[in-house]
Amino acid sequence: MAPMFELLKRDAHTKARLGRLTTPRGVIDTPAFMPVGTQGTVKALDPRELREAGAQIILGNTYHLNIRPGMDIIRAAGGLHRFMGWDGPILTDSGGFQVFSLAKIRKIKPHGVEFRSHVDGTLLFLGPKEAMEIQQALGSDIAMVFDDCPPHTSTPREVQAAVERTIRWAQECRAQPRAPAQLVFGIVQGGAHAPLREQCARAVTALGFDGYAIGGVSVGEPESEMMKAVEMTEPFLPSGQPRYAMGLGTPAQLAEMVARGVDMFDCVLPTRMARNGTAFTRKGTVIMKAAFNKTDFRPIEEGCDCFACRHFTRAYLRHLLNVDEILGVRMLSVHNVRLFLKLMLDIRTALAAGTFAELHRQIVANYVPSRKVLSARQNGVAR
Amino acid sequence: MAPMFELLKRDAHTKARLGRLTTPRGVIDTPAFMPVGTQGTVKALDPRELREAGAQIILGNTYHLNIRPGMDIIRAAGGLHRFMGWDGPILTDSGGFQVFSLAKIRKIKPHGVEFRSHVDGTLLFLGPKEAMEIQQALGSDIAMVFDDCPPHTSTPREVQAAVERTIRWAQECRAQPRAPAQLVFGIVQGGAHAPLREQCARAVTALGFDGYAIGGVSVGEPESEMMKAVEMTEPFLPSGQPRYAMGLGTPAQLAEMVARGVDMFDCVLPTRMARNGTAFTRKGTVIMKAAFNKTDFRPIEEGCDCFACRHFTRAYLRHLLNVDEILGVRMLSVHNVRLFLKLMLDIRTALAAGTFAELHRQIVANYVPSRKVLSARQNGVAR
Repeated sequence: MAPMFELLKRDAHTKARLGRLTTPRGVIDTPAFMPVGTQGTVKALDPRELREAGAQIILGNTYHLNIRPGMDIIRAAGGLHRFMGWDGPILTDSGGFQVFSLAKIRKIKPHGVEFRSHVDGTLLFLGPKEAMEIQQALGSDIAMVFDDCPPHTSTPREVQAAVERTIRWAQECRAQPRAPAQLVFGIVQGGAHAPLREQCARAVTALGFDGYAIGGVSVGEPESEMMKAVEMTEPFLPSGQPRYAMGLGTPAQLAEMVARGVDMFDCVLPTRMARNGTAFTRKGTVIMKAAFNKTDFRPIEEGCDCFACRHFTRAYLRHLLNVDEILGVRMLSVHNVRLFLKLMLDIRTALAAGTFAELHRQIVANYVPSRKVLSARQNGVAR
Repeated sequence: MAPMFELLKRDAHTKARLGRLTTPRGVIDTPAFMPVGTQGTVKALDPRELREAGAQIILGNTYHLNIRPGMDIIRAAGGLHRFMGWDGPILTDSGGFQVFSLAKIRKIKPHGVEFRSHVDGTLLFLGPKEAMEIQQALGSDIAMVFDDCPPHTSTPREVQAAVERTIRWAQECRAQPRAPAQLVFGIVQGGAHAPLREQCARAVTALGFDGYAIGGVSVGEPESEMMKAVEMTEPFLPSGQPRYAMGLGTPAQLAEMVARGVDMFDCVLPTRMARNGTAFTRKGTVIMKAAFNKTDFRPIEEGCDCFACRHFTRAYLRHLLNVDEILGVRMLSVHNVRLFLKLMLDIRTALAAGTFAELHRQIVANYVPSRKVLSARQNGVAR
């Protein structure tokens, strides 16, 4: 069998890498974007649409799935893949991020966090042991360790405590049983502090995981800090394993992160912005309800090969959104997800051809981020 | 070219007919069910899903499309087919039903109705001339005349007045220009009064339309009255042309209507009930959120060939509906529309094989209508 992760090529001008992650349920070409299926579905899309958009792996949320439908039902279904009808690879997060960002009245304890469900207030407990047990039952192809993700406004002392907890909990996760063939990725915290990032990266990589995530990014910090956090961490991650920047980002940010040596991404932006009536293009975002689309019979983006752009016009999608028809949100979701996946495909093609540096410049120069997107990303639950 | 409507076979035991309606945009095998695309989309479905479900024709609403997006936009798009990305046949209603059931503060005038938009209160006018002009611009394959559809609680005198108005307006519609190759169907009113039904049918058929609809059914009257209205009208409709019962109905009602000689149907029930979380089966309806579906890993209906039943379980769909995921409503819509279309396919197959009487008995005997469905049908806007 092929090794789990193959590093196929390194870019000559940046830290970008072309790779391939092989799992029993399928190959993931990297750099890869993972659409987010929080509650057992990538919002508004069905599995066929995901495949057509080019998705090779999707993400599921331990925190949400554990609350609804609950693990008794997913266990009875035979795992998350069978439950949701997606037979490709799934990465599950550990729930740590949601516990720290979404749940109310939480109490950090030595082996996890006591919190109240954001749905009905039920008292719940999630720690390394529980998170790994749930992910084992979900049967995801890649499980994430349970970490402590502090807000970007934390004091250095608080970040230090979060790093120590993250390392201890990573050890506990490492010792837990896994689902058959399940990979487990460690997570590096440390905020905007280079020594803490290094300390955490050294300690977590020493535990020997199958890949490593850079956590504590996209939690409301300015973009420059986000880039620095990745730059501080990347040198301490083993080059032979995949690197995953959690909860990112805009198309331009993804290109920037690839140039900094990151291989995997997930973000709710494509589907969340679709539900706000916003379409992504390579040049920025478009408010589809805007009056200038009234009689614009072009597709969302000229040249896009997505189902929405092949069948529908801006004028039609504007109408659907105006009258609250589900097909409007559906088609923006199809387009946005395809745009992110096509961006990664173009990046991989450029890496193979040795032209990534030029593509990287183009993507970043052409993309004008909107305030709306940046604020959606910075609301702290952007993953 | 084939004649517009071919009567292929008559059932030996009932008044059921097997037929074929040929339009430049495609053939419609009858008895036919037309999914309803009120605002330029069959709610929650895309055109590919409609084709896969077996739709040969869909319905569009003059009243709604005229208000939003408005005819300037649909004209600029090149008609409704191009606007909504559906290249098969479309039947448009005339807006008469909505003017009488949905709009507020209406004033009946000699050549139409003055009313206020249910969306923003704008003063609008719709009559035979306007309805035909709009349908000409929409470019539908079958246009309906503008009629006066009185509530089922009307006095005989009121129904008489509505019949006279309907006949006069049918004459005015008949004289209006059409879109190229557009067929126009007349509508027979008359409520529960046999003499009025006969008077209206004789007068409207004398005008020579391409097909005839039985209106004023499914407007809140008891099922027995609905059946009688069809029985009173059918003998006066020419056998060589298609008959369309507007706004019907449950699966059992469709079978009953076919047995009474009706060829075409439209109804919002499949998509409306889907949005309420209700799935149709051949035996009745199922509330998908119900606790008994919690760990039911069978499809909505065993043996159903729809996309939803081939890919998803009741337990999964219940979860999606519980957490308000769009995919839940989408998949119930896919299933319900397929169920109605498959019912008509089975009816046509039985008619061809000479076994319709038996199938008719089975459908009616097996189907147990729920109060929820009956009340949704009887709320007076069931089309």
